Amino acid sequence: MDRIPILRIGDVLLVSIQIDLQDQTALALQDDLSSKIVETGAKGVLIDISALEIVDSFIGRMISTTAAVSRVLDAETVVVGMQPAVAITLVELGLTLDGVRTALDVDRGLALLSSALGKAGSDVEVDDLAHE
Amino acid sequence: MDRIPILRIGDVLLVSIQIDLQDQTALALQDDLSSKIVETGAKGVLIDISALEIVDSFIGRMISTTAAVSRVLDAETVVVGMQPAVAITLVELGLTLDGVRTALDVDRGLALLSSALGKAGSDVEVDDLAHE
Repeated sequence: MDRIPILRIGDVLLVSIQIDLQDQTALALQDDLSSKIVETGAKGVLIDISALEIVDSFIGRMISTTAAVSRVLDAETVVVGMQPAVAITLVELGLTLDGVRTALDVDRGLALLSSALGKAGSDVEVDDLAHE
Repeated sequence: MDRIPILRIGDVLLVSIQIDLQDQTALALQDDLSSKIVETGAKGVLIDISALEIVDSFIGRMISTTAAVSRVLDAETVVVGMQPAVAITLVELGLTLDGVRTALDVDRGLALLSSALGKAGSDVEVDDLAHE
């Protein structure tokens, strides 16, 4: 079974989705990600979907669920790198990714997490990570 | 044709290889990466291979070539996330990845790039990115 690697960058976990997600892979990713959040105490999750040219309702729901799980574990989720066609498809499917923030690229996503976490008065260090 | 996304984090480009590289994909990655280095003025390249359980001589050579091309374009390459079995295989194949630095994970790779670039007297900003 393919597993998607979860990369740690300071207090942020970065997941780059490059393959078409099957049910098993998506479930494994959710398991791995929640374990990793607990293990590392990460405060933010960046999901990069720049490699995805097609997003269906399954992936849309998977992203929403992942964000909801992360939020319960006290980590903010930002989806980055969405292609224009994907955005159109998501809206046409009626999937507006409620509760998920988006940013154009990883740098902007880090900046967004930095400001969001900074406002929350958290002691995270992602401020150091983001510069535009 | 699959393309591997290249993520920009400050002055560093991050490439996470998750699929078995075929010739076409590897060539496309080298093209994309060199274009992106020139376009962004990146000073460092992190290649994450934590998802690879098998590395053959083709991938080994690809990594060496990518590092050599990056160096000519004034960017340091660090390979991160190598699994123990992969390290053993590389040595058994006689591929010692000359001229390529390695680090255990992305955070350590960023720290390594930061210190390497700092010593070179460069004006890069990766110092902000790395903390262990």
